[in-house]
Amino acid sequence: MPYINIRLAGSLSQEQKRQIAKEFTDTLERIAHKSKSYTYITFDELPRENWAVGGELLGGDK
Amino acid sequence: MPYINIRLAGSLSQEQKRQIAKEFTDTLERIAHKSKSYTYITFDELPRENWAVGGELLGGDK
Amino acid sequence: MPYINIRLAGSLSQEQKRQIAKEFTDTLERIAHKSKSYTYITFDELPRENWAVGGELLGGDK
Amino acid sequence: MPYINIRLAGSLSQEQKRQIAKEFTDTLERIAHKSKSYTYITFDELPRENWAVGGELLGGDK
Amino acid sequence: MPYINIRLAGSLSQEQKRQIAKEFTDTLERIAHKSKSYTYITFDELPRENWAVGGELLGGDK
Amino acid sequence: MPYINIRLAGSLSQEQKRQIAKEFTDTLERIAHKSKSYTYITFDELPRENWAVGGELLGGDK
Repeated sequence: MPYINIRLAGSLSQEQKRQIAKEFTDTLERIAHKSKSYTYITFDELPRENWAVGGELLGGDK
Repeated sequence: MPYINIRLAGSLSQEQKRQIAKEFTDTLERIAHKSKSYTYITFDELPRENWAVGGELLGGDK
Repeated sequence: MPYINIRLAGSLSQEQKRQIAKEFTDTLERIAHKSKSYTYITFDELPRENWAVGGELLGGDK
Repeated sequence: MPYINIRLAGSLSQEQKRQIAKEFTDTLERIAHKSKSYTYITFDELPRENWAVGGELLGGDK
Repeated sequence: MPYINIRLAGSLSQEQKRQIAKEFTDTLERIAHKSKSYTYITFDELPRENWAVGGELLGGDK
Repeated sequence: MPYINIRLAGSLSQEQKRQIAKEFTDTLERIAHKSKSYTYITFDELPRENWAVGGELLGGDK
């Protein structure tokens, strides 16, 4: 542990994921004293039409 | 907040997702007094073979 | 299936949970044609200080 | 990886959790060839009134 | 209930998923006395580049 | 969106949660161009005996 799950609509480049994983892991080590090697991070990139805010899907058919 | 995650096997049409998102958000506002604009809803549409009930995968190879 | 997870900060009364579970299940049956008996709904009621929006915890120490 | 999350209503004894964690980890190693040391398992023990099946909360006020 | 979510990087064969679902369900019935028919298991097979351990993505661009 | 869930065994101080929420949100804005106000972060602090690594619970009865 820890286990971090990042969910977002749309997709990230591999370079963005690499950078986010690195920074989140560093933050957890520095602030919460969690050994880097035990930190798991997963990215769930959802289609925009599978995410709703305020009762409306983000993506649509037009 | 709130954050609602809906997981199901198979897929929904965009119109079904739109309708579900709208109704769930309305329900939460009416019953739990959560402002609509803060409600996030995500749909995870899993392949049927990635879902098991009673120890058996829903989808199969035939 | 389906499996629905509702996460929110603070708590709901049992009556609110009962009503939300009923309405969500009805909605899924009506819109997505999912048999009621297979729908699972879980509520995760988090302490307000375990939820952040915009980089700020919702609950605080005062 | 892998990461396994077990959610249930009510609680388990520590001995039950210990046994389940051991067996699940063994199964994943044997079937999916995942090294035991990388397998994380978490248990979420929910109050019965936070779990609904078929539109009804499992636990109630009587 | 219970609901079990298995997340891993890469993919499993249908036969592996079938075997894991069967064994996990059997384990829960034997150890935790949960009726098989109520146990749901889902598999999330993530792209390797969507999983980080120790701050590094498992999959890469080469 | 995005929605980030941080799961760990044991607990964090409120100050640690505040700092992690701030840094994660900043990172997502800078790297992924996600508006801060839409980023939700939740912390799940699990009892150590509800987390297993390598088939062994982290916490025990002694």
